[in-house]
Amino acid sequence: MENQLEWKEDARRDVFKCRVFSIHESVCRSPDEKDTGVFVVIDSTDWAIVLPVLETERGKAFVMVRQWRHGSQELSLEFPGGVFEDGESSASAALRELEEETAYTAKKITYLGKMSPNPAIMSNHTHFFLAEDLKKLPAQHLDKDEYMDVEIVPIDEVLNNMGEPPYIHALMGTAAALFMQKGGYF
Amino acid sequence: MENQLEWKEDARRDVFKCRVFSIHESVCRSPDEKDTGVFVVIDSTDWAIVLPVLETERGKAFVMVRQWRHGSQELSLEFPGGVFEDGESSASAALRELEEETAYTAKKITYLGKMSPNPAIMSNHTHFFLAEDLKKLPAQHLDKDEYMDVEIVPIDEVLNNMGEPPYIHALMGTAAALFMQKGGYF
Repeated sequence: MENQLEWKEDARRDVFKCRVFSIHESVCRSPDEKDTGVFVVIDSTDWAIVLPVLETERGKAFVMVRQWRHGSQELSLEFPGGVFEDGESSASAALRELEEETAYTAKKITYLGKMSPNPAIMSNHTHFFLAEDLKKLPAQHLDKDEYMDVEIVPIDEVLNNMGEPPYIHALMGTAAALFMQKGGYF
Repeated sequence: MENQLEWKEDARRDVFKCRVFSIHESVCRSPDEKDTGVFVVIDSTDWAIVLPVLETERGKAFVMVRQWRHGSQELSLEFPGGVFEDGESSASAALRELEEETAYTAKKITYLGKMSPNPAIMSNHTHFFLAEDLKKLPAQHLDKDEYMDVEIVPIDEVLNNMGEPPYIHALMGTAAALFMQKGGYF
């Protein structure tokens, strides 16, 4: 059955490039070879998203960051994360982003899986991690264009409100699903 | 606190356009007005994703579609969905995509919420729906470049395997999180 669904790529051409991603067109033959299609694909570095679980006097909480998002033009409360740097492993990227954005480090990092942010139009992957046994660092280390507040939010509050502002970022919903599935909450 | 995080847009310019989306650059002032940044934003039509729950002899199952995804170059097993057509409401888009892709219709459609697929670089939203009380239609109505198989998969199998192939699409993970949260499964 599966080879009745697979397209074959005959050619690709670059059509756009900017600092964050590039775009190519993929010229493909349909599974039954009756058809040809041109599909636009966004190529970007992989990203890591890390769910930092902090033990507090009131129970377990996530360490989250609130920041302005230029695509949707609104504030978003999210798990920390960001794009891989050159030569960096996914776990190293997750730990570095955690430390830079939240001023916490983690003694324990657990891989929860990777998914395609949008396999229809994007070729990269998002890698998800659980961070536990957290320890406070002196300060955030933000990039020049990063302005973000750190917030400690009870786990149930985050999971119950995913999809309501300020929990607007769909990939944080994906992270929540993997956490519920693999983190013992489902 | 919040106005210490909000950027102000001073200008925008179009930089790319194709059949599926267009791209603009947004020139912004930082919250403290000390900095200027240029951010690239992808503009696309909103999408609907619909979780169709079918009552079977073995319990509840999702009606899903398996298809080739040109971005990640692999097969993906997903909830049905697609982009809004002109003038269409989100619920109408969800029901139409359900009918066209799976050959099932639903007497009951429940809105689960909307999220931004990537608020950092995309301006559109993904709208999530639960479809229940399903009824079989004679046939799929696929677009010329759509080749997809319909599969009936037990709910637990989908939720437990999200993040493992063929459950590779992150927005289906988001849908799973909203289902667990609002569908009585969390």
